[in-house]
Amino acid sequence: MRITPRAELDRRLARFQALLSREGLDGALLLQRADLFYFSGTTQQAHLFVPAAGAPLLMVRKSFRRAQRESALESIVPLRSLRDLPGLLADHGHGQPERLGMELDVLPANLYFRYQKLLSKTELVDVSPLVRRVRMTKSPYEVEIQRQAARLLDRVMRQVGNLVHEGMTELELAGELEAVARREGHQGEIWMRNWNQTLFYGHILAGESGAVVSYLDGPLAGAGLGPAMPHGPSLRPIRRGEPIIVDYVAAYDGYLVDQTRVFALGHLSDRWMAAYEAMLAIQATVREAARPGALCADLYDLAVAKAGELGYAEHFMGHGEGRVSFVGHGVGIELDELPVLARGVEMPLEAGMVFALEPKVAFPGEGAIGIENTWLVTEEGLEPLTVSDERIIIL
Amino acid sequence: MRITPRAELDRRLARFQALLSREGLDGALLLQRADLFYFSGTTQQAHLFVPAAGAPLLMVRKSFRRAQRESALESIVPLRSLRDLPGLLADHGHGQPERLGMELDVLPANLYFRYQKLLSKTELVDVSPLVRRVRMTKSPYEVEIQRQAARLLDRVMRQVGNLVHEGMTELELAGELEAVARREGHQGEIWMRNWNQTLFYGHILAGESGAVVSYLDGPLAGAGLGPAMPHGPSLRPIRRGEPIIVDYVAAYDGYLVDQTRVFALGHLSDRWMAAYEAMLAIQATVREAARPGALCADLYDLAVAKAGELGYAEHFMGHGEGRVSFVGHGVGIELDELPVLARGVEMPLEAGMVFALEPKVAFPGEGAIGIENTWLVTEEGLEPLTVSDERIIIL
Repeated sequence: MRITPRAELDRRLARFQALLSREGLDGALLLQRADLFYFSGTTQQAHLFVPAAGAPLLMVRKSFRRAQRESALESIVPLRSLRDLPGLLADHGHGQPERLGMELDVLPANLYFRYQKLLSKTELVDVSPLVRRVRMTKSPYEVEIQRQAARLLDRVMRQVGNLVHEGMTELELAGELEAVARREGHQGEIWMRNWNQTLFYGHILAGESGAVVSYLDGPLAGAGLGPAMPHGPSLRPIRRGEPIIVDYVAAYDGYLVDQTRVFALGHLSDRWMAAYEAMLAIQATVREAARPGALCADLYDLAVAKAGELGYAEHFMGHGEGRVSFVGHGVGIELDELPVLARGVEMPLEAGMVFALEPKVAFPGEGAIGIENTWLVTEEGLEPLTVSDERIIIL
Repeated sequence: MRITPRAELDRRLARFQALLSREGLDGALLLQRADLFYFSGTTQQAHLFVPAAGAPLLMVRKSFRRAQRESALESIVPLRSLRDLPGLLADHGHGQPERLGMELDVLPANLYFRYQKLLSKTELVDVSPLVRRVRMTKSPYEVEIQRQAARLLDRVMRQVGNLVHEGMTELELAGELEAVARREGHQGEIWMRNWNQTLFYGHILAGESGAVVSYLDGPLAGAGLGPAMPHGPSLRPIRRGEPIIVDYVAAYDGYLVDQTRVFALGHLSDRWMAAYEAMLAIQATVREAARPGALCADLYDLAVAKAGELGYAEHFMGHGEGRVSFVGHGVGIELDELPVLARGVEMPLEAGMVFALEPKVAFPGEGAIGIENTWLVTEEGLEPLTVSDERIIIL
């Protein structure tokens, strides 16, 4: 079992505390599982109080013993009832904070009211922009886990050829690949921060499924299994001569990587091959320009311009109401982290950022094709974390 | 693809509207996917306005076309920007509501602020108790889908004997069973309403894994894969002569059932067999007493009393900090619906309720054993929806 080392937690907390001070906050009270995992090492039911200066306090509802084993933090105390929280803070020298950060982007409204009542003299402010900013640049420790996740995903991809056959449904192939992923240690759950958005492993989309639009905030979605599960693999049989898109996320020891590869049974028409080459060219163009200081918006605009130049203006990143206005998204503990390579995002790239870049093109009624890799921003430019062969695999 | 029929939606909406009127609300604005699915038939990104009287209005962000295909409601309009919402409501004769219900139990605080600003003259109140009350009793249409989910789960359970072998890890067995489940049409995602709680298919727990405690609000949790995924199957090998608990949830066409069965390689000691018989006896005792009008708290107390009588007072429903104070939970579109058969819950059972009853016993360091079925409350008492053989399968 991998336990986040104390020094790693300390570095993360120090960066967070610097931002808390700069924003004039007395501290932050963190509850969400991804944030707890990042700052304390455990996802047990707990409240993590991070003062703007000084030692953090982890107050655990359940399981206290397990949190003690999983978190390298020094101060871990049981929290028997929420009512005890102000007293516990005071006992540890924190008094009643004047301005306290909470994760108001994810905390349900009823819980917000409850904390506001409990800490009636405290101003609760949204600390999620600071949390997301700290989590945005990855440490070497984090990148190493993401590399392991990428190797896991590659071992799954290498089984596609052995498992896929004509006439099996997208869903059957998904089940077989998911069993391989589990055998390799995939944790199953893929965490997303945005409300009402979920992803189950990823998408396997054959032929026209690739161009079916859904609620998901992504360029491709697929038909899925019905109104309750309206994206991802469907009961459509896989046929010869069509692109089979395998857009899968590895989740390993809490960290994600995102990758898309294309397979086909027998052959693919020149038109599909040309579209795929165009997506590779867009990836190369963005890779060339992406380095610390480059603006996310400029990289997005560059991808769109290149798509236009290559003749894919109309269908790049989805078509009609399914089109999205981004080409990349941060990937870490959650699938929708910063940065977002999107229209109008003035954020510059920084070394240590990790994002998935996914130039894709969808033709209504026909399908979709594209590439996706997860990249680390270094001082020298982009370094790929995902490692699977980029060639279309014709089986 | 199964589309929820218009008449079914109308009956659900009529029951909801009666509660809205009784509580003095002018209407409700629903956003959460499970609630959208229940009241509109689609889970596309949308806002469903349900007036206290009159026709509901489904305003869709993405995908509009797909929502039109998936929802049998009459009034479906595109919502291009959130700013357009008050105007759309007015255009459809709803003006600015004075008291509007929203799902404040799940709606993130930042979104709550945004809606409060947008509807500045409207009092926003938590409508989730009314939503949960309507969803609590299932229609014959819903129960039929749950029966199909139960048969799916039974087909998965019948494969355990073919797939399990000594030395394979809990996780490997999970992967193999999950592939079977997918082949049978399992949707993968299991929805829970409570924040920060998730379940990935369920738990496969062999030997002492059965007694490992975690944050999850359930009697058993297991070691899982590490701090980021601290419950469910682990890398522990399955051995001979120990209980192998398979606590799995089927999710099919949006509906869930929950079931636990026990397997063993070779044999189980008399002590384990006696504990299992005791849990079956507790199930029989609760089943005998459960009928419309019986109080949830009384059924819980009855289970606890019976456990004490049989000599399992100390370890019934978990041990130490892992112990939970319920023996059953409502199951429908979400895994944590009403009713909850728990200490102090004065709610009477009603015909049409569906709940999982899960008497289980955990011995620290040794493991756990128990039974779980999903039951429909009828005028005559409980009818099982789950159908798998209740005997321990010795392989």
